Amino acid sequence: MSDTLFRPKSVAVIGASAKELHIGNRVIRNLLDFGFKGDIYPINPKAEEICGVKAYKSIADVPADHIDVAHLVIPAKAVPQAVEDCGKKGVRNIIINSGGFKEIGPEGEAIEKDFLERAKKYGIRIFGPNCQGIINTDPEIRAYCNFTFTKPDPGHISITALSGGVAEVIHQAFSQMGVGTRIYASNGNACDITIPEIVRYLGNDDGTRVIVLYVEGLRDAAAFKAVAKEVAAKKPILAMKAGRTEVGAKAASSHTGGLARVDIATELIFKKAGILSFHDEAALCQAAAAFASQPVPKGKRVGMITNTGGPAVIATDVLVEAGLEIPPLSAKAVQTLKEKVYPEASVSNPTDLLATGTAAHYRAAMDVMMAEENIDCLYIAFVTPFFVDTDSIAKEIVAVSQQKKKPVICNLMTDPRQWTRTVKILKDGGVPCFAFPGEAARATAAMVRYSELRSRNIGEPSVFNDVDRVKAEVILQKAKAAGKSFLSATDVYEILSAYRISVADWRMTQTPEDAEKAAVEIGFPVVIKADSESVLHKSDMGGVAVNLTNGAMVRSAAEGMKKKLNTPDLKFFIQKYMPGGKEVIMGAKAEPGVGHLIMFGLGGIYVEVLKDVVFNLTPVTKFEAEEMLSSIKAAPLLKGVRGEKGADQAKLVETLQRLSQLVSDLPMIREMDLNPVMAYSDGVFAVDARIGI
Amino acid sequence: MSDTLFRPKSVAVIGASAKELHIGNRVIRNLLDFGFKGDIYPINPKAEEICGVKAYKSIADVPADHIDVAHLVIPAKAVPQAVEDCGKKGVRNIIINSGGFKEIGPEGEAIEKDFLERAKKYGIRIFGPNCQGIINTDPEIRAYCNFTFTKPDPGHISITALSGGVAEVIHQAFSQMGVGTRIYASNGNACDITIPEIVRYLGNDDGTRVIVLYVEGLRDAAAFKAVAKEVAAKKPILAMKAGRTEVGAKAASSHTGGLARVDIATELIFKKAGILSFHDEAALCQAAAAFASQPVPKGKRVGMITNTGGPAVIATDVLVEAGLEIPPLSAKAVQTLKEKVYPEASVSNPTDLLATGTAAHYRAAMDVMMAEENIDCLYIAFVTPFFVDTDSIAKEIVAVSQQKKKPVICNLMTDPRQWTRTVKILKDGGVPCFAFPGEAARATAAMVRYSELRSRNIGEPSVFNDVDRVKAEVILQKAKAAGKSFLSATDVYEILSAYRISVADWRMTQTPEDAEKAAVEIGFPVVIKADSESVLHKSDMGGVAVNLTNGAMVRSAAEGMKKKLNTPDLKFFIQKYMPGGKEVIMGAKAEPGVGHLIMFGLGGIYVEVLKDVVFNLTPVTKFEAEEMLSSIKAAPLLKGVRGEKGADQAKLVETLQRLSQLVSDLPMIREMDLNPVMAYSDGVFAVDARIGI
Repeated sequence: MSDTLFRPKSVAVIGASAKELHIGNRVIRNLLDFGFKGDIYPINPKAEEICGVKAYKSIADVPADHIDVAHLVIPAKAVPQAVEDCGKKGVRNIIINSGGFKEIGPEGEAIEKDFLERAKKYGIRIFGPNCQGIINTDPEIRAYCNFTFTKPDPGHISITALSGGVAEVIHQAFSQMGVGTRIYASNGNACDITIPEIVRYLGNDDGTRVIVLYVEGLRDAAAFKAVAKEVAAKKPILAMKAGRTEVGAKAASSHTGGLARVDIATELIFKKAGILSFHDEAALCQAAAAFASQPVPKGKRVGMITNTGGPAVIATDVLVEAGLEIPPLSAKAVQTLKEKVYPEASVSNPTDLLATGTAAHYRAAMDVMMAEENIDCLYIAFVTPFFVDTDSIAKEIVAVSQQKKKPVICNLMTDPRQWTRTVKILKDGGVPCFAFPGEAARATAAMVRYSELRSRNIGEPSVFNDVDRVKAEVILQKAKAAGKSFLSATDVYEILSAYRISVADWRMTQTPEDAEKAAVEIGFPVVIKADSESVLHKSDMGGVAVNLTNGAMVRSAAEGMKKKLNTPDLKFFIQKYMPGGKEVIMGAKAEPGVGHLIMFGLGGIYVEVLKDVVFNLTPVTKFEAEEMLSSIKAAPLLKGVRGEKGADQAKLVETLQRLSQLVSDLPMIREMDLNPVMAYSDGVFAVDARIGI
Repeated sequence: MSDTLFRPKSVAVIGASAKELHIGNRVIRNLLDFGFKGDIYPINPKAEEICGVKAYKSIADVPADHIDVAHLVIPAKAVPQAVEDCGKKGVRNIIINSGGFKEIGPEGEAIEKDFLERAKKYGIRIFGPNCQGIINTDPEIRAYCNFTFTKPDPGHISITALSGGVAEVIHQAFSQMGVGTRIYASNGNACDITIPEIVRYLGNDDGTRVIVLYVEGLRDAAAFKAVAKEVAAKKPILAMKAGRTEVGAKAASSHTGGLARVDIATELIFKKAGILSFHDEAALCQAAAAFASQPVPKGKRVGMITNTGGPAVIATDVLVEAGLEIPPLSAKAVQTLKEKVYPEASVSNPTDLLATGTAAHYRAAMDVMMAEENIDCLYIAFVTPFFVDTDSIAKEIVAVSQQKKKPVICNLMTDPRQWTRTVKILKDGGVPCFAFPGEAARATAAMVRYSELRSRNIGEPSVFNDVDRVKAEVILQKAKAAGKSFLSATDVYEILSAYRISVADWRMTQTPEDAEKAAVEIGFPVVIKADSESVLHKSDMGGVAVNLTNGAMVRSAAEGMKKKLNTPDLKFFIQKYMPGGKEVIMGAKAEPGVGHLIMFGLGGIYVEVLKDVVFNLTPVTKFEAEEMLSSIKAAPLLKGVRGEKGADQAKLVETLQRLSQLVSDLPMIREMDLNPVMAYSDGVFAVDARIGI
């Protein structure tokens, strides 16, 4: 995808119309109204001109060697031929605004396939179909190749979303906030040009400082992963994934034609790539406004300045709940400031300058906090009383903000219809202003969250060279050849040992006599489990006996099972019985195109009742595995509470990484769990496991 | 407090000023600009007129028998005399805008006390001091007795808050949303007229349909409790309490002069009274706008109609996460609707009419959902494409909304500068419109949350007549007389048995021989605990032995303690040892002016690590006690999981209620806990307890 789509020098509209309510009219009008710097070619077999622009009977008639962008606003069935015509003319990109393709069923899908093949033949890139189009506010371009209505100011936030409705909501929000945007791209069915491609383009676009992304799932998860990491390293990407709930996912599938399922992988990809994730589109837009003009804070310590009490209290709650800190001012700072503000002012953090506080007071407080080493960002609450010179205060806030040393966020409490000048000073000065204290505080918190996300170095995945991948692969291939969907216990344990995942010592035996012998070898106490393809629910069928403390017990248990289960392929799985320790669960589940989800939690009620589990995606690095351990709610239990010994966390971290490597090496594994893993203060042992292929 | 404050017929401004930036000028200008229907009397010793209104040298000169409201905009030290003058003139209410009183320290507090005494003498009510004032938009009144800047449209939402800053933020938010307000009251130091009084007045004001309340703690908790319940039964009260975090509470205390502490009682009072609590002021304002014009839904089932996919997905997530349901449409509804909309439209819930959907389509979908029995409220997502007649769609939404059968909430996605007519139709029609899907969904969820809160009948507290209050009181009085701050074990257990709270059987004994005898009486196994005023940390000192299974063990343990602790007042507390069962904690803590906080949680790690506890306020009814049990995260454990027996929940509920009655009957108890209570499937027993007075 080249600049020709987002920086077109010429735009043709095939299906241009003289009728005002027609998209083929609206696109031309939008291009004109927005002051498009290139050539416009309305294509209409009958009209001489459209919106005052000379029209052509066909694309072939256009007096140009090539055309950067052609809109198609014609019935679906006419699209393949039109693409063919465009190809012959040397059109480089086609934006298909029309619908009637994949989204309506097999018939439309066939048309989509048809025109796509023709486009490929000519090297044309397709944007859409069933889409809004693109906008570029760059003063050199001014391309409004789009039929929607928001008229953006030029700015530095770029927006991309498959959903036109949400893209427009976001676009309109910035417009209402008086915050400029750069590129807008809503690509509907996305049959050719994808979100990852667009994100990469925005990453390379110097005018884009912040990327806002809305998705309802990733169609191109693998491509997205690759691009996201690269782009997020260059500039902030703020993203929201909807369809988090089952019902929401169902609603999403009904309008995108995607799979209806709650996907947690997308947000994990966001996190791994360093993309800041939001669950609220308003909060996302507000944060984007802050990122667009302010530097990223170096830490989470906020200095607060206000001229009214209550709103600062509200903001304090939000900041603290988000994990930010509001440190006390240094004695020196307090001293400096006290000399410069009203004696009744409250000089601490927050500093309350009082409603009568002047521009000089604000400036003094801001200077002090800018100089404080233990303050990373400035939160300014500013109500505009009629009796102070609010313009001057605004000018000081702008001046300090433009130092770009620490981010400055403002909760501006005013009537923008009365305080127009004050508002304009702040807006023109690039100070992000929010009417509600909660909004300003959440935008501040988002910046800090981003700062932490960016400084979080997850490192490279550890590679364990002591594993025997080939052996594991052979076992899996054999099981697959045998048509198994779950591996036998022997196979499972062989694979675990090939990956040096500690398990409780075990033997598979054929007879009660061998079972007893094996138990003696392992050492008591032991567990015995019946192993047979025909016995599915072992414990319900009396096929499990635990804590057997001598050989006679083992033999008698095995004989009992033999009698009861009466199946020719019966074997006896003998394993060291591991009492005490903490029960832990680890799991893996294939996530097509992405790798595997890795799960971790404390076993038993912690998983079943409290749902206290965390997920990540392969490859899980050491940093991430440690983060998983510490981010369950019951994490203190792993460290040990009430005088108990903690679990061997280093070993747990290693086991998670080995599990990650195992499923990454062996993508054939559909699902796998180690449940439970018994964790002691000096070692962890998987005592049951399952592998599905 | 009478109508004379909020519906004044005359307003004097003592300290009226010709200087534009003076509050004494601004109040007069606000009254004039707002079209005050009564008389205005500027008081200024030198001016002939102020803002074109005839001025008087002193309040005594005003040609009226009495004056409803006098503003004081004069230095604090002049206030007592001015109050005296007002008293002589027959002023009924004084709004003191000036500061310099309690908030600045003892000197100001003395002045406050002085003028308050004088006011009482004359029967004058004081609003403030250090406050903004009041506004009443009633067209018959138009009183803007306030120096702030928001110019409200008349409406049905009334606002009250001590914090002027927050009140103004809220007021301005409604103004920006185009939502009218009724009465505005921000009473600063609140030395006389209190928030509870204002809330009662608003409850009786027919023009007020919704009350919005902001607090940072309750100064008059007892009065508030009484009023809140009465008023909340009449109309929705939406409230926010800030200072939830420790740092937030500290910030609040610094500007209100209140106590810096995180108070959880306020929100519990809200809930008990049926006040809808918010943690976000924007969400509060948005919900209030919905309440102001829409009926309260009867249930939580939402019917969704949209003309764009993505925003409905976002809303679905928010609704479902808030516990609302989006039920499928009945077969009949689907049939009816299919005949009336585009064949490509998605007829289900949400119903997607497509961007080209017409007013007739919207109407058909709304009619169907209004008729559906299993739908309680309508959520309309409405983007305004240029190619449809959006005015007509707006008119249909208004028509359906005005049926007032089910609430209608609209996510209006438009550019209000371009679609001015459409926006005006919806606004004039009283349809609550929100730009973001999340906002509209949260407003819908708030209405449902309120519906559930209102239909939640907590019932009257049970009164257990089998208790011996007098006995317990005598024990407490004696302990108090003896200067104890914590009761002895004997006293504690005597009080528990006076309130029939089951405890593990116990005896207090003097000698090892008696200890053995007592153990035999109780039955083995037993616990023995050393009891002595001089032994504070019993278990660290070897003063506790558990699971003693015979008399010799008890005697030997007692003898060991005697030797080791070597203190003359040593006694031996023998108690039945209760193994197994579920460990539960109950607690009570005095909350001045409110009663006691009652706490419940599962013991051990659930409290210590997972902080899984819930609170309520005395008196705890049966309904509330049951709710406490079911609202801890580990609630399923009480019911029994993994084949375990559940706990005796009826007994736990009864015990919570008995604890509530105990501390309510005996307010001298400062704190008390039953920790742990062992809960079995057929009974619960406190096995350790503590009472502080």
